[in-house]
Amino acid sequence: MKKPLIEPLQNGMFELAKKRLDSLTKPAGSLGRLEEFAWRLVAITNQEIPSPLSKKAIFIFAGDHGVTEEGISLYPREVTEQMVYNFIRGGAGINILAKHASAEVIVVDIGVDCDFDEQPNLIIEKVIRGTENMKKGPAMTREEAEKCIDTGIAIALKFADLGYNMFGTGDMGIGNTTPSSAIAAIITGKHVSQVTDRGTGLSDNALIHKIKVIEDSIALNKPDSDDPIDVLSKVGGTEMGGIAGLILGGASRRIPVVIDGFISAAGALIAFAIDPAVADYVFAAHSSMEKGHNIILERMGLKPILNLDMRLGEGTGAALAMMIIEGGLKIYCDMSTFDEAGISREMA
Amino acid sequence: MKKPLIEPLQNGMFELAKKRLDSLTKPAGSLGRLEEFAWRLVAITNQEIPSPLSKKAIFIFAGDHGVTEEGISLYPREVTEQMVYNFIRGGAGINILAKHASAEVIVVDIGVDCDFDEQPNLIIEKVIRGTENMKKGPAMTREEAEKCIDTGIAIALKFADLGYNMFGTGDMGIGNTTPSSAIAAIITGKHVSQVTDRGTGLSDNALIHKIKVIEDSIALNKPDSDDPIDVLSKVGGTEMGGIAGLILGGASRRIPVVIDGFISAAGALIAFAIDPAVADYVFAAHSSMEKGHNIILERMGLKPILNLDMRLGEGTGAALAMMIIEGGLKIYCDMSTFDEAGISREMA
Repeated sequence: MKKPLIEPLQNGMFELAKKRLDSLTKPAGSLGRLEEFAWRLVAITNQEIPSPLSKKAIFIFAGDHGVTEEGISLYPREVTEQMVYNFIRGGAGINILAKHASAEVIVVDIGVDCDFDEQPNLIIEKVIRGTENMKKGPAMTREEAEKCIDTGIAIALKFADLGYNMFGTGDMGIGNTTPSSAIAAIITGKHVSQVTDRGTGLSDNALIHKIKVIEDSIALNKPDSDDPIDVLSKVGGTEMGGIAGLILGGASRRIPVVIDGFISAAGALIAFAIDPAVADYVFAAHSSMEKGHNIILERMGLKPILNLDMRLGEGTGAALAMMIIEGGLKIYCDMSTFDEAGISREMA
Repeated sequence: MKKPLIEPLQNGMFELAKKRLDSLTKPAGSLGRLEEFAWRLVAITNQEIPSPLSKKAIFIFAGDHGVTEEGISLYPREVTEQMVYNFIRGGAGINILAKHASAEVIVVDIGVDCDFDEQPNLIIEKVIRGTENMKKGPAMTREEAEKCIDTGIAIALKFADLGYNMFGTGDMGIGNTTPSSAIAAIITGKHVSQVTDRGTGLSDNALIHKIKVIEDSIALNKPDSDDPIDVLSKVGGTEMGGIAGLILGGASRRIPVVIDGFISAAGALIAFAIDPAVADYVFAAHSSMEKGHNIILERMGLKPILNLDMRLGEGTGAALAMMIIEGGLKIYCDMSTFDEAGISREMA
């Protein structure tokens, strides 16, 4: 894995942006987090007036999971493949919300156990045909895990070259909350039960079983919590590797990356463990229903933008959050200043 | 005041909508509040597949306040007039965010102490030239308060006839958190200090002074908490009357109304006290920094959609929330069903 260089943001850019925000026709700070989004975008892009977010793409990394053998999901494994076709045909939740947000949907087959024909908006970069069952051994080899991250980095660099200036992350993979919880538990140091939830809607008993499967997998594989590649390979998934790479690559090109839900956060946590500087470039779209999600975000120092009780994944939260972040940028770029509008300032 | 007839929503429409939502290619309920917005819109519009929200308008009711004599705002009174011009010229926060949400901005001069020339997107329906100072007597007469509400109703009916199918509310009026807190205290029964906050950014001492002004005004005018017109006339403002009317009129025509921040909530509370059926038609855009805001929303049984630490007013929160609500409707109308997409259902 070749980690690209990620520059820390400059305080001077934050100050420049805040000065402009305070000159606009509103009480200082009264647009709350919209203002935060604006000054972060100024510092991320290193542009005093950032370009409009006119080329936005949401990448759905899709992969299968050997651990589905253990009965940890309500849905059969073939739904991963079926949903990829749904994304390509435009009928899934993410298609609708990405269109609403004027973002493109790009599907990345990074590890689905099926052969797709070439399609527009489908990138076939299959590293493996699904992971191995982590309850019986490592999900992937170290080399495969590194290749997943490299794949994400390469996609980020390619789309940066194409002029895209905001990325979103999404995921599809039946069973993928299970490896995400495993990653969260190991890297944050929380108990498995604190970061494991119902996924697509497990019952109480099924949740207890899922926790046991994760605990057993960790006990068997003994991932090294200080080595994110080791964690990804032993108890992770291809999607999280691709997402980690996309974030690393995007940050290296000063592109803001909006991460979606729990699986995206697990991928971001891998990227953060590789290089904490990525956090400056990441926007946390929302707080999902998965209880491990906020624990990961807190670890990365990120505050979710939306809380709409969503738990679908695919990038659906990222699409909605992009619209809000873009609102903040438009405020910053397009509002009149007090002087331009001839409006009295606050009284001494 | 002629209260229009507001029909309660039908349970059958909710059930119809929920059935369709559960047939879409996602785990049941996994789009959280987006699904709630969709089934509410089905019931509000009484349409099995609601029409696209293609004509949206945000109404900014503007008025002045005699109580500004008491020094309860950081900004001088003339800023109300100056900001109306800013709205008309398109340089204010609401102009930027409404455009982002594809909504029109309509300014309503319902009580500004200044004469405007006719302008596109400005409705001049001035009831008074600012309220009287409520610390010295009633803010308005009962007839004036009723006329404010009637004005809002008439605007709602006119825009319903023009084919608009979503309304947002906004406000502009230097000093208007003071009467809004007074309305909130009287109708919810909370202490003034529980529903009074810093407005555009008051200091600790100025906040204590503002609370005292509100307490004195209530003690002097003795508004009848069971008579919303009495409350509006004695310690309210023209904006809140107009907003109350817009909500009553919109609900009577089955048009969803997205209310913005604290001032809009105070107006909505007047409408709710006149006819509690309005709550079914109202979406609470966000939770603002004014602490009285959530108290009002709870009283009406409304849950805010966004929480972005905003405290600007103007309808800015409403514009952002409209985009999210519209996302829910598009999900409902445009996603594929499991059968259409050939996707396996969850396992038994």
